[in-house]
Amino acid sequence: MRAGPSQEEIRRQNLGALLRYVHIHGATSRAELTTELGLNRSTIGALTADLAAAGLVSEKPPRDTGRAGRAGRPSLVVRPESELVYAYAYSIEVDRLRAARIGLGGAILDRREVPRPPGLPVEETVPLLAGFVKQMHRSVPDGSVYVGGGIAVCGILRGEQGPVHVRPETGWVDEPLGTALAAALATELGSERPIVTGNAADVSALAEHARGAGAGCDNLIYLHRDVGVDAGIIVGGRRLTGHGGYGGEVGHMVVRPGGRPCGCGSRGCWETEIGEYAMLDIAGRAATAGREAALDVVDAASRGDANAQAAVRQVGDWLGFGVANLVNIFNPEVVIFGGTLRDVYLAAAARVRSRLNSMALPAAREQVRLRTPQLGEDASLIGAAELAFEHLLADPLDVTG
Amino acid sequence: MRAGPSQEEIRRQNLGALLRYVHIHGATSRAELTTELGLNRSTIGALTADLAAAGLVSEKPPRDTGRAGRAGRPSLVVRPESELVYAYAYSIEVDRLRAARIGLGGAILDRREVPRPPGLPVEETVPLLAGFVKQMHRSVPDGSVYVGGGIAVCGILRGEQGPVHVRPETGWVDEPLGTALAAALATELGSERPIVTGNAADVSALAEHARGAGAGCDNLIYLHRDVGVDAGIIVGGRRLTGHGGYGGEVGHMVVRPGGRPCGCGSRGCWETEIGEYAMLDIAGRAATAGREAALDVVDAASRGDANAQAAVRQVGDWLGFGVANLVNIFNPEVVIFGGTLRDVYLAAAARVRSRLNSMALPAAREQVRLRTPQLGEDASLIGAAELAFEHLLADPLDVTG
Repeated sequence: MRAGPSQEEIRRQNLGALLRYVHIHGATSRAELTTELGLNRSTIGALTADLAAAGLVSEKPPRDTGRAGRAGRPSLVVRPESELVYAYAYSIEVDRLRAARIGLGGAILDRREVPRPPGLPVEETVPLLAGFVKQMHRSVPDGSVYVGGGIAVCGILRGEQGPVHVRPETGWVDEPLGTALAAALATELGSERPIVTGNAADVSALAEHARGAGAGCDNLIYLHRDVGVDAGIIVGGRRLTGHGGYGGEVGHMVVRPGGRPCGCGSRGCWETEIGEYAMLDIAGRAATAGREAALDVVDAASRGDANAQAAVRQVGDWLGFGVANLVNIFNPEVVIFGGTLRDVYLAAAARVRSRLNSMALPAAREQVRLRTPQLGEDASLIGAAELAFEHLLADPLDVTG
Repeated sequence: MRAGPSQEEIRRQNLGALLRYVHIHGATSRAELTTELGLNRSTIGALTADLAAAGLVSEKPPRDTGRAGRAGRPSLVVRPESELVYAYAYSIEVDRLRAARIGLGGAILDRREVPRPPGLPVEETVPLLAGFVKQMHRSVPDGSVYVGGGIAVCGILRGEQGPVHVRPETGWVDEPLGTALAAALATELGSERPIVTGNAADVSALAEHARGAGAGCDNLIYLHRDVGVDAGIIVGGRRLTGHGGYGGEVGHMVVRPGGRPCGCGSRGCWETEIGEYAMLDIAGRAATAGREAALDVVDAASRGDANAQAAVRQVGDWLGFGVANLVNIFNPEVVIFGGTLRDVYLAAAARVRSRLNSMALPAAREQVRLRTPQLGEDASLIGAAELAFEHLLADPLDVTG
């Protein structure tokens, strides 16, 4: 009887599984791979040889453990070729543009950053990002493997290849960002590898799930705040996208009926209580888009500024309010406070926890851990690279062949 | 190179895939199975023969289509053995107990129902349900295959086999319902097949997803109301359970800060605005647990009772409010109003839609359809049976062998 996946398909799946394992966990002995992947030793040997021939992993004896005279031949260690196999990651933010070259395994090998003037259009953004890549590309070692690009944008997307609706503050609507960037870099990179786009909260959730504060947690919520507030949500190990890719818009959950008007047309959205503009307003400051203004408030609060302290308290209170709702709905294992919510959470953790205690159901509340991003501001870059690595991991030899 | 699933595992997967297909879609020609499952004709033939030998499907020529003289031999039709392969489904509700014998393919073959006196304890419930099974079991045809049981309960669960925390109104806490029922039926059913427990909203979502208003929709929300309000949520084709099985408690999303006190200890939970007690209260009626009292309000409103109309309007308004939040968070393709919310929705659809229009983001709002359960009140029974059929579909010959 012949049916189901062919031997070739099974081989590809196993190549992807092995490469994913070392991409997430780093250098791993053949013995551990045998156990973790449930494959026999000869299969692990054959898969490793194929991946090594494609330049994706290397094998070395383990470092001397200092235990002389240990019996038996030590198991070879399989390492991802982190210096040679790489993606370019881009982060489009309200007030800055960032790009990085990121190696298999998630290490940032090189990076660039420039402030973003308000409203900088796509046609002026693409050359800046392409310029970064051209600079970084000069120091790429011979024999390296480019696997593709990933873009994190603060905004709403439709599909991985589709147009980008970025926040109103950026002035972009329905822009074909990935396509334009791929075209600008076609000559330089000499490659047909795609450039995939994702929401900043979504890709940060991926990064923290893979190698950060949410490692090993299959149910997590990554809250992101810049001018707006949204979430990257992982349910049962997979990203919540929703039917059309618009899932995770938690900033437009109404928490205060009849509250302040929101840019979306509704009133009392969570964003109107915990967004950066709300915090600046409560602190008696001008509404200025950008990280600095928001972080200044938290900083001023820590130095005793009464208005800033009131703002942090109030935002912390509403932050806990919305988190409690999400904990009741999702029963997550971890909630991660990203973007400028990180600093608000650190300054107002007791208020957040107090709201959670009064509003979340005991069973769900007892299971959730509140965390800040372990990857810090790099989460969105590393997550953008994860989008590109996904294509490699799905079919390793197709990408390199 | 040997690795990954063995031929035997692939065969089991394919048997499960074929059986699942006819379980969901009903009688299907071999030709269509070949196309839909991506397997070749001889494989489909071999799989069908195995399933037929186990008594799970039968094969027949297609019904005469009336087109005489059509060329070629018609493709055989594979039918699930809906009369012979069955599960027992149980529904524990605030004011009634139901049980049914449900055939492969989801047809209800036999059913029983009895009112549930308030606070009936588990030790008195189990004999009632076991009695129903004993009655129904007398008419089971020879050669039938019992695949297991599924229980839908209105309450919070921990795991499929774990203890049941049912709503406070039922008076149950941490009860080993499935185990007790399996023990009571061990002699009768002469079987080791498990009895699996699920939340009523969760299993109703499964049923409507498999064969109801959410068929083909991989992102759906099934709202259920009895005394409380919760949701069965399907994300990317899979049930949202959360880290510990407590996901979907949307009734405790706070929609009105500082609102009415909720049984959970918080205030202004969605449940306090749209729950049955809230509706009875607004209508100026006594708080009575049970479907009848709630449906009476909707009925009175339709006959012109001003208090009842006010209650339906207000509950409809808050219903739309919460749905808008969920639409922003999940971007679902369909939202289904189950339990007594069905009647509220039908009576107040314009209010629900109006709230959705003013609060949900346009992209998500345009994609969502609002529906009532196609399976009606049978959704929880059919969904409970789905829990039992899941075990069969995962490994068809293991269950019957």
